[in-house]
Amino acid sequence: MEKLSLIVDMDEVMADPITKLRAWYARDFGKTYTDEEIAGKHLAEVVPPAHAHLFHQYLNTPGFFRDLAVMKDAVEVMKCLHEKYHLFVVSAAMEFPNSLKDKYDWLQEHFPFIGWQQICLCGSKQIVSADIMIDDHSRNFHNGIRRKILFTSHHNVFEQAEERVNNWKEVAQKLLG
Amino acid sequence: MEKLSLIVDMDEVMADPITKLRAWYARDFGKTYTDEEIAGKHLAEVVPPAHAHLFHQYLNTPGFFRDLAVMKDAVEVMKCLHEKYHLFVVSAAMEFPNSLKDKYDWLQEHFPFIGWQQICLCGSKQIVSADIMIDDHSRNFHNGIRRKILFTSHHNVFEQAEERVNNWKEVAQKLLG
Repeated sequence: MEKLSLIVDMDEVMADPITKLRAWYARDFGKTYTDEEIAGKHLAEVVPPAHAHLFHQYLNTPGFFRDLAVMKDAVEVMKCLHEKYHLFVVSAAMEFPNSLKDKYDWLQEHFPFIGWQQICLCGSKQIVSADIMIDDHSRNFHNGIRRKILFTSHHNVFEQAEERVNNWKEVAQKLLG
Repeated sequence: MEKLSLIVDMDEVMADPITKLRAWYARDFGKTYTDEEIAGKHLAEVVPPAHAHLFHQYLNTPGFFRDLAVMKDAVEVMKCLHEKYHLFVVSAAMEFPNSLKDKYDWLQEHFPFIGWQQICLCGSKQIVSADIMIDDHSRNFHNGIRRKILFTSHHNVFEQAEERVNNWKEVAQKLLG
């Protein structure tokens, strides 16, 4: 049987930029936001309005994405998904051009079994299609995606989802069962 | 009426890497290949076998893609395509990770009207879909592409094509008529 195609998002799914963004904000302004304070919101919405633009600067700082923490169990589960599916990693990275090489190098370091053929760094995900997509942004679930799996992140906790996973163990249960 | 989506390739369509590759090869080995010598072939196939790997090195040299010549009439026609279509620039760049930022910067310089949302740097084009694709590699014309327009390049001159354009004036005739 032909393998199904599976698109997996990077930020807040494979990689954790939120811990680092909170740490950088705390470094600059002495305030660390709690999980409760950012639930259902984007970081730019919870800080004082005059600080909202800073996250764009943080995210476009060369090196920001290079040493992000890997999400728990992501490597082990991705290894198995790579065997079972036509696996692609698709990240909407183009808004932050300084992140491009960092993201590639980060994948090489932590997910060396993923070949360059399987990586896609785009602006909008509207032109990528697959049988299954795992993403923390429901805006990426367009008609070209058959099965839409929302990966829980602080900003989407109150959203309705057709299908939701809270962590990589649950991804394994759904897609490797 | 909803705009049609249009994917345009970069290398050998918007940008000219072949002139530079031939120049670098001539610089290193004193031999300049003519159009006749490379017709229907990839450069790596026409040089002595021991040199075939060099093109990969050239292409992954930081800066290689940064100052490529823009194909004649590409800017003017792309400006009009950008108005009429949902335009995306999709380049299979991931094999050459040092090219990623260079390609982004090159687009910003020569095609500043193309936003980051419209740029996609991928490994394989198998996951990108559109109503129309302009590409010099027919291998990128999969089932997710409705109308497949082959852009003539030295390596594809002897290929059969459903639809072919030889230059940007012909793109304009076909898509802006």
